[in-house]
Amino acid sequence: MKTQRLSMQTVTPAGAQMREDLLALEDPLEIRIAYGFGNMRRRLSLAVTMRTPGDDEELAMGFLFTEGIIAQPSQILNIKQLDENTLLAELTPDLAVDAERLTRHLFTSSSCGVCGKASLDAVHTVTCHYPTPGYPQIEPDTLYRLPGLLREAQATFELTGGLHAAGLFRPDGSLLLLREDIGRHNAVDKVIGAAFRKGILPPFKDLLLLVSGRAGFELVQKATMAGIPLLAAVGAPSGLSVELAASGGLTLIGFLRGERFNVYTCPERILL
Amino acid sequence: MKTQRLSMQTVTPAGAQMREDLLALEDPLEIRIAYGFGNMRRRLSLAVTMRTPGDDEELAMGFLFTEGIIAQPSQILNIKQLDENTLLAELTPDLAVDAERLTRHLFTSSSCGVCGKASLDAVHTVTCHYPTPGYPQIEPDTLYRLPGLLREAQATFELTGGLHAAGLFRPDGSLLLLREDIGRHNAVDKVIGAAFRKGILPPFKDLLLLVSGRAGFELVQKATMAGIPLLAAVGAPSGLSVELAASGGLTLIGFLRGERFNVYTCPERILL
Repeated sequence: MKTQRLSMQTVTPAGAQMREDLLALEDPLEIRIAYGFGNMRRRLSLAVTMRTPGDDEELAMGFLFTEGIIAQPSQILNIKQLDENTLLAELTPDLAVDAERLTRHLFTSSSCGVCGKASLDAVHTVTCHYPTPGYPQIEPDTLYRLPGLLREAQATFELTGGLHAAGLFRPDGSLLLLREDIGRHNAVDKVIGAAFRKGILPPFKDLLLLVSGRAGFELVQKATMAGIPLLAAVGAPSGLSVELAASGGLTLIGFLRGERFNVYTCPERILL
Repeated sequence: MKTQRLSMQTVTPAGAQMREDLLALEDPLEIRIAYGFGNMRRRLSLAVTMRTPGDDEELAMGFLFTEGIIAQPSQILNIKQLDENTLLAELTPDLAVDAERLTRHLFTSSSCGVCGKASLDAVHTVTCHYPTPGYPQIEPDTLYRLPGLLREAQATFELTGGLHAAGLFRPDGSLLLLREDIGRHNAVDKVIGAAFRKGILPPFKDLLLLVSGRAGFELVQKATMAGIPLLAAVGAPSGLSVELAASGGLTLIGFLRGERFNVYTCPERILL
């Protein structure tokens, strides 16, 4: 249930015509956590993100991990759906959660293009997954094929024009997992959470991540948290993305279209 | 200073070639406010947004307005730049600011695709600018021309491929103001702030807003706050965008490309 059908008019020089259109759904998801030990157990509303409904538990798992709340998926005991737009993640009692820092951190950082230098520093503090230099080795031909594979696998995008996709690929170019969302950052959190579901644990040192749009800062941040060695985007990176990718040892590829791409950082993973 | 030059490699079947590339800059801007009266005067760090540097004061003015902190630009006494990534907006002493609500509101709502039904309701509570039904009347030919005018006026996009544009147009299709940013929501806040600078006060009942990407919820929210009667997007709207536009009396246009567009809400403003 990622789309919604509605009536609208298409206007062209030939006139207006009533038609049906499919739109991507966009709805708030509140992620709550329960944390702490014994009678110190507390609940906290961690974030509300606008997402396309579907794969919500995977989104929550990915979000908790890429935002540095948990270091391993096993630190989530279970995820309960409280209502259609609210999830509660029960965290293991031994996990240290600093509620004040979290609220501050998520207010200033997080998924949403809202962040800070503080958060840029925080990434390097939290992640312990510096990818192996020069590994894996990827053929340019493999990279050329990825956007086509992503589009073929993407059921909804063609219909609504409104959903972003994030795909995890193996180094030989085969697609492992794909997730879609109206928000790029949610698509990435969903696909990372989906990998956890499959038993793939961080660091994702043998996987490549492809995103359908631009490579903004927050996507590089999330890829870095997961220890992904290569992030490719169909669109442009930003200056800050390149900076973060360079310091995190991530190969950052932009403008991957047709038989062409730009390598911004760590080109030693590309077989040239 | 919206772009940064750097070296990278372009890879094609002919091989790799070192080239220079221009990237859009992306840097955190912290917006602080000073509010309250006499010895109750307080400061609050309101938000940190990832933005492309430039037009920062306009961004802050637009943000304070579209997020409902101020109802009129005159409620900002002045804006001081504290450092290159921090602004302090001095608000008039008589303005009621509920710091707790704000922190909560901006944590759950705001610019960044992070919001909630609570915030969807909040828009209708806060805005008092329901646009006049059926006004202004716009020719389809006028709309067809807008994306070309936006692109012509957009200095940076063609160079980096990474910046979004937001343009305010008059009903005859002439461009009043354009602003760019790596974040769509920031581009909209900047162009609204720029209109304030020109002495144009809300509601913007005689202006159309065109955005270069998708029409996500937060853009409709911002347009609604400003009392803009028509929002057009080159890309797709979301289901929630259509819902909010319909309830706010805003004409929402999507997929405005070539001589074609879709009208999702309030078609009575289009001369068919």
